Amino acid sequence: MKKFDDTLPAELPRLDKAVKRLCHPDSLSAVWHNSAEGAAMPSIEDIREIMSSLAAAIFPGYFGQTQVRLDSLRYHLAANLDSIYHKMSEQILRGFCFTCEKQHAVCPPRDSQSKNAALAFIDALPEIRRLLAGDAKAAYEGDPAAQSPGEAIFCYPSLRAMLHHRIAHELYKLGVPVIPRMISEMAHAHTGIDIHPGADIGEEFFMDHGTGVVIGETSIIGRNCRLYQGVTLGALSFLKSSDGSLIKGIPRHPILEDNVTVYAGATLLGRITIGRGAVVGGNMWITSDVPLNARISQEQPRA
Amino acid sequence: MKKFDDTLPAELPRLDKAVKRLCHPDSLSAVWHNSAEGAAMPSIEDIREIMSSLAAAIFPGYFGQTQVRLDSLRYHLAANLDSIYHKMSEQILRGFCFTCEKQHAVCPPRDSQSKNAALAFIDALPEIRRLLAGDAKAAYEGDPAAQSPGEAIFCYPSLRAMLHHRIAHELYKLGVPVIPRMISEMAHAHTGIDIHPGADIGEEFFMDHGTGVVIGETSIIGRNCRLYQGVTLGALSFLKSSDGSLIKGIPRHPILEDNVTVYAGATLLGRITIGRGAVVGGNMWITSDVPLNARISQEQPRA
Amino acid sequence: MKKFDDTLPAELPRLDKAVKRLCHPDSLSAVWHNSAEGAAMPSIEDIREIMSSLAAAIFPGYFGQTQVRLDSLRYHLAANLDSIYHKMSEQILRGFCFTCEKQHAVCPPRDSQSKNAALAFIDALPEIRRLLAGDAKAAYEGDPAAQSPGEAIFCYPSLRAMLHHRIAHELYKLGVPVIPRMISEMAHAHTGIDIHPGADIGEEFFMDHGTGVVIGETSIIGRNCRLYQGVTLGALSFLKSSDGSLIKGIPRHPILEDNVTVYAGATLLGRITIGRGAVVGGNMWITSDVPLNARISQEQPRA
Amino acid sequence: MKKFDDTLPAELPRLDKAVKRLCHPDSLSAVWHNSAEGAAMPSIEDIREIMSSLAAAIFPGYFGQTQVRLDSLRYHLAANLDSIYHKMSEQILRGFCFTCEKQHAVCPPRDSQSKNAALAFIDALPEIRRLLAGDAKAAYEGDPAAQSPGEAIFCYPSLRAMLHHRIAHELYKLGVPVIPRMISEMAHAHTGIDIHPGADIGEEFFMDHGTGVVIGETSIIGRNCRLYQGVTLGALSFLKSSDGSLIKGIPRHPILEDNVTVYAGATLLGRITIGRGAVVGGNMWITSDVPLNARISQEQPRA
Amino acid sequence: MKKFDDTLPAELPRLDKAVKRLCHPDSLSAVWHNSAEGAAMPSIEDIREIMSSLAAAIFPGYFGQTQVRLDSLRYHLAANLDSIYHKMSEQILRGFCFTCEKQHAVCPPRDSQSKNAALAFIDALPEIRRLLAGDAKAAYEGDPAAQSPGEAIFCYPSLRAMLHHRIAHELYKLGVPVIPRMISEMAHAHTGIDIHPGADIGEEFFMDHGTGVVIGETSIIGRNCRLYQGVTLGALSFLKSSDGSLIKGIPRHPILEDNVTVYAGATLLGRITIGRGAVVGGNMWITSDVPLNARISQEQPRA
Amino acid sequence: MKKFDDTLPAELPRLDKAVKRLCHPDSLSAVWHNSAEGAAMPSIEDIREIMSSLAAAIFPGYFGQTQVRLDSLRYHLAANLDSIYHKMSEQILRGFCFTCEKQHAVCPPRDSQSKNAALAFIDALPEIRRLLAGDAKAAYEGDPAAQSPGEAIFCYPSLRAMLHHRIAHELYKLGVPVIPRMISEMAHAHTGIDIHPGADIGEEFFMDHGTGVVIGETSIIGRNCRLYQGVTLGALSFLKSSDGSLIKGIPRHPILEDNVTVYAGATLLGRITIGRGAVVGGNMWITSDVPLNARISQEQPRA
Repeated sequence: MKKFDDTLPAELPRLDKAVKRLCHPDSLSAVWHNSAEGAAMPSIEDIREIMSSLAAAIFPGYFGQTQVRLDSLRYHLAANLDSIYHKMSEQILRGFCFTCEKQHAVCPPRDSQSKNAALAFIDALPEIRRLLAGDAKAAYEGDPAAQSPGEAIFCYPSLRAMLHHRIAHELYKLGVPVIPRMISEMAHAHTGIDIHPGADIGEEFFMDHGTGVVIGETSIIGRNCRLYQGVTLGALSFLKSSDGSLIKGIPRHPILEDNVTVYAGATLLGRITIGRGAVVGGNMWITSDVPLNARISQEQPRA
Repeated sequence: MKKFDDTLPAELPRLDKAVKRLCHPDSLSAVWHNSAEGAAMPSIEDIREIMSSLAAAIFPGYFGQTQVRLDSLRYHLAANLDSIYHKMSEQILRGFCFTCEKQHAVCPPRDSQSKNAALAFIDALPEIRRLLAGDAKAAYEGDPAAQSPGEAIFCYPSLRAMLHHRIAHELYKLGVPVIPRMISEMAHAHTGIDIHPGADIGEEFFMDHGTGVVIGETSIIGRNCRLYQGVTLGALSFLKSSDGSLIKGIPRHPILEDNVTVYAGATLLGRITIGRGAVVGGNMWITSDVPLNARISQEQPRA
Repeated sequence: MKKFDDTLPAELPRLDKAVKRLCHPDSLSAVWHNSAEGAAMPSIEDIREIMSSLAAAIFPGYFGQTQVRLDSLRYHLAANLDSIYHKMSEQILRGFCFTCEKQHAVCPPRDSQSKNAALAFIDALPEIRRLLAGDAKAAYEGDPAAQSPGEAIFCYPSLRAMLHHRIAHELYKLGVPVIPRMISEMAHAHTGIDIHPGADIGEEFFMDHGTGVVIGETSIIGRNCRLYQGVTLGALSFLKSSDGSLIKGIPRHPILEDNVTVYAGATLLGRITIGRGAVVGGNMWITSDVPLNARISQEQPRA
Repeated sequence: MKKFDDTLPAELPRLDKAVKRLCHPDSLSAVWHNSAEGAAMPSIEDIREIMSSLAAAIFPGYFGQTQVRLDSLRYHLAANLDSIYHKMSEQILRGFCFTCEKQHAVCPPRDSQSKNAALAFIDALPEIRRLLAGDAKAAYEGDPAAQSPGEAIFCYPSLRAMLHHRIAHELYKLGVPVIPRMISEMAHAHTGIDIHPGADIGEEFFMDHGTGVVIGETSIIGRNCRLYQGVTLGALSFLKSSDGSLIKGIPRHPILEDNVTVYAGATLLGRITIGRGAVVGGNMWITSDVPLNARISQEQPRA
Repeated sequence: MKKFDDTLPAELPRLDKAVKRLCHPDSLSAVWHNSAEGAAMPSIEDIREIMSSLAAAIFPGYFGQTQVRLDSLRYHLAANLDSIYHKMSEQILRGFCFTCEKQHAVCPPRDSQSKNAALAFIDALPEIRRLLAGDAKAAYEGDPAAQSPGEAIFCYPSLRAMLHHRIAHELYKLGVPVIPRMISEMAHAHTGIDIHPGADIGEEFFMDHGTGVVIGETSIIGRNCRLYQGVTLGALSFLKSSDGSLIKGIPRHPILEDNVTVYAGATLLGRITIGRGAVVGGNMWITSDVPLNARISQEQPRA
Repeated sequence: MKKFDDTLPAELPRLDKAVKRLCHPDSLSAVWHNSAEGAAMPSIEDIREIMSSLAAAIFPGYFGQTQVRLDSLRYHLAANLDSIYHKMSEQILRGFCFTCEKQHAVCPPRDSQSKNAALAFIDALPEIRRLLAGDAKAAYEGDPAAQSPGEAIFCYPSLRAMLHHRIAHELYKLGVPVIPRMISEMAHAHTGIDIHPGADIGEEFFMDHGTGVVIGETSIIGRNCRLYQGVTLGALSFLKSSDGSLIKGIPRHPILEDNVTVYAGATLLGRITIGRGAVVGGNMWITSDVPLNARISQEQPRA
């Protein structure tokens, strides 16, 4: 073989230098995260996979296998649920360990806590499916372009957003940290609909088109409500504590009672109540309560 | 080997119970779909793959293989088109069988109908490419930040949305159910632009930025129009039949004549006509006709 | 074996015809691109892979491997950076050759130019990480729903958009064509936030929710600014040259000084300056300067 | 864009010519196969996948998932068996259609026949596992280097060959064409052990090392036999019919009674019987019966 | 975030040390290879992929797609051949550059030489298919267990070995270095049949079972020959030059004339000629010529 | 949606029954393995991946990446070694837990033991590379058909077998259970060469062709030995203890001193010594010592 030459080319010192700087505590400490007990970080990839499995469990035939046989459905569903249970336990555990960092305290036994949360989540799946079937019905009935509830399941962003939200909200209620937000952001990335996992949303909910919808953490939405694209249910202002930092967790988003409709681009801010059956027109800016069955709209367009 | 212990742990009964409930007709019937003749459901994955193949067929070099040789292009294009034809036939068939369910009737021979639709679609590809090349030109000419039409093909959401729309619209015209909506929702998820497959859009169309644009099913758009982000071409209200259900399929969205420009955030609702060469300003709310070459804008900003 | 029958079925002539038409210069020339020196086109897939590697290099543990060991981090980081360097060089080269087409001129030696640009980019990574750590801090401090800066890194669209932007902007400053736009469009597709690579954005920048935000090419944003969903920093009008074509590259977007907040849906157009500490209310339409610390909001909502 | 040049380079005519010649009936007819009813050919890839699933079903933990939980094993096993059943039915059907070609006759309804064969095969799985567990025990007891039966399952070519053989033999007995041979050849490729699916092999069978072992179609092997590498159980000569073609299917390979041992490289040819408990020495060439408990070995080595 | 601790654990110095030693010229120089012009090494993965494509081109339906349509076969074959041509050119180029190292000379223009070799190889494909169809026929006629020539194509190691050999031999005749050996070793790994690419093998060749067959570089085999497992066509001794090194390339392996049969385990050594129609018995050791139609067998077995 | 029918088809009861029987302790207990501490089983897939990484670490450019840059080799090697270290630790741990089952005892702390073994293995890599470089040189010098040592690394089964063996032997010496056998069986499956991990093999070892070679657990081979295909270094007989079970671990295989050559098909059995420089002819059957420099061959062939 040829004598080989190990002269280093010019670019190496620069790469070496970049490595050194990126591994230096001055740079690394700003982005480094120590999970409790050296646990792995939550995995975006694994959560995405769990969501795919859940979609197949809730809507068989639409997601996952395209040809589901009713006879052997229970075989595959059982295997799928068991996998979901174990993978979800693992991610919940990572979620607990991720946030544990801030507590500067000895960790409680997280493993059984995670398994319990995952089991409680599995228990809730039939109810989650029932709610989503209602959401599909609402989409079909609310959109003149819809041909069937099945079409809504297949291709309506509202359904996809609610699939993620109803799952994330269940985990949120179980006190699971971080993971619900990661799930809701997956829906946001896919649909442009940003629902905080904390929002409490009633049956037969439909968002038409959906892009740009924002529903804040402490929002409460009744039965059979409908939003159009670009609607914001937001906070009016943020309370700060005496040291100037934001006070977190205070109810600060709107309450929509049953049968409320909000048209495209409307902005509803603060802990206000929109009365049952009210209709809020497009592009409205609302910061105070709206009475029962009111129809609020802006002045005549100037065209 | 060790004697093994088949005592079941506590979580199993709960998983068993969840399986049982999710397979119970009470739960399953709300989401179960029987396609005609036991056909498989349309496959999101397969349609996504078909769209990738179509992108490579229409814009060789930009999508698919990054190094295309002009000499052997016809080899690969032919193989690609044949695959597209067979895969598209299959998905069209599944689309027919999916919606067939509602008709409670004996199915006509769907297989040859599907193949014919797929062939007619293939026939339309050169025209689809011609229209998309015009859309790329419009993007380049309409955006001062664009460096070349090629850049528009590579990275403009407008082009990606129109690639999906012109394909979905062709299938829509061929009477293919469900599949066009699935395709348009793929574009919506990717770009935030929601164009119903039924919309009839003329040559050299450009949407700058695009996020939040909504173009309804019965919209008609002339040549050389331009929309900005957040523009809605929507319906003003929905007609209901005497039994209270929505009447579907009625013309209810705007008509834009040639050379119309609509700036960001404007909302155009109902079967109105925006005259040739008109310019609609940002955030406008329009529910009646706009004359030829009109320039509609809101009062002075209050800043 | 059976005698085989090579009679062609009816569909073949139609496929043949489609192939012929799609390969005909009349059709192909409208979409065909000749990169200089027969180079391959930039590859969306490869750039996506580079972006994943960069995310793992900048935020170890959050992206890429979920269990990073501090001790051997430098091993993997070094290998990763070297791969990034070589892949980035290749894509930069393709970018140069892609745009070279327009120049109708002899190409300068692109290979070493590309490597130099890639090395300069690698040099900038520690600074890019520092800026992004600041953006994570801003997100945590600015959103009452945020539980930790780590949560922001994991699941805030603002962080994802800025990860792409700060990388794309660095390449933009290095004069790399096309690639920065492809990167920024990846962020746009994922977040609904459309930031042109040319925009100059200061430290600790945060966009809440983000869907529909548009930040134009020549925008300048100071330190510690905050935008909400649907905010546009756009151009008021486009200058045309005497031959009617757009003049490209002129400063035409707003300047935001330090500590500016712009609420949801506001539209800021033209080369105006928003003074330090100013607050622009939701849905405002601004086309002229806003003074220091001003609070601009629309009239009372009409609810 | 640049004017593009569609002059074809020199290599194209040669590729065109090769395509033409390879598609010409003169060339194609020699390798073309028409399955009955236009069915797809059996798929090597799919059969390989079925074999992986079967290995996981028979030896849980060793193959497939490395961490199997006893509690939920039945979930995954049921899902796995259902998949195996459907995939196996499909391949059996393809096997029937593949060989049907030779019969120049109208096909009986193959679909239900295939499903029945697949179900009968599933029925046989517990017995196949029992036999393979016996083979693992025999390997452990027969090889002084073996540390446990588990080690034999993990890494003994004898076990891998028997896993394939006992499956292929079951399909062979069910009259399934082609597929059993494809399965046995997979084992041959992996282990160098070539057992025809027709061979009838008793319990607790072990082949040490195994490379080069050949066991012919009509061989019969009793309980507790052991072969070493390079042993052939072959035919002495082939009977030809009056037209000179081979007569197929006649018993022509050896019978080994219980407890027979054959050492490395021995060749046993023809329909001979090796009596119970006999031991055949290495490199022996045997063409006639061997009595009960005989010990046959070659003369002293000439070293 | 927690203060992080960058104390290195004990294992790092040992890994560091191993890296240092493995990168030290003392260790690296023994395995380092400099291809000419810094070319990449031949890629086992890419060659494997080329072989799969070739199998699909030669035996459509058996390998690659399992459902080939006669009508559109030419589309896919053309695309496949073009890919094979370009990938093969690349690997041939790497082969030239790989061996170029030994020549300590300025390289001739390898690129066009590689393309020419690849084109010549493509030209030979119809003849290669013709020969392989003959090999399949020979397998079917020679094995009483074979049910059809198609079965031989699907699952006979003889066919797989000859598929690789006839391809490797063509490249060998074209003077391509290294690649033919890599291809023949792929067949060897899969079948246990080791044929040197240089061996010249006539039509309708069949090896039954095949494991352990060795056919040396300068072997010449006539039409219609048949070998059984474990047959060696080897060299008797190696000539050494005056400096003690082996003289390479001298004819040193047997010549088999037409219609020769060699039974299992026979060893034929040296440049001897086995006359037309001769039959060599199992386990024979042959080092001199065998006359026309001779039947050579060992003495009666001693059983 | 259609009313759905959950009548079960006939095949379900049979699948249910098969599941029940395969999960019944009577069937399951024969193949069930309980690793200590509920650890996962060793993973064939993971070990295969480790072997690929090791091949790339030892022979850069031949395996793994085909274009290795000398300058940044250390980056990738370091990352690769760290991954190998962690994956190897995990598999070693699983190996310990796998065999622990037989000991009916409390496990020592396996985790640190596994890491130590993995580190010791990493330490040995430079020496393993040195030995393999010698094996490549021996292949090149010993085969007149070899063109370069590089060719031997690329495509000689001898090198592939020794790559696996020298790694497996190192782990064997470190007392790692099961894993070494799994590695050696991978080589056996690929090459037909079956070397027990316990065999002690000197420098510059070469096996030409190799198929069918068997080298037993307690074999000892000196420097510069050469074997041909089908050579067996085996045990003559197995000692049994008073209870009839095999006594394991006793030296029972041949010792080859330096410079020994054994031609194809020779069988060497028992704890005999083949003296330095001896040559054993093809197909010989040797069960007693062979003196220094002896040349043992069978009588003249009977041709």
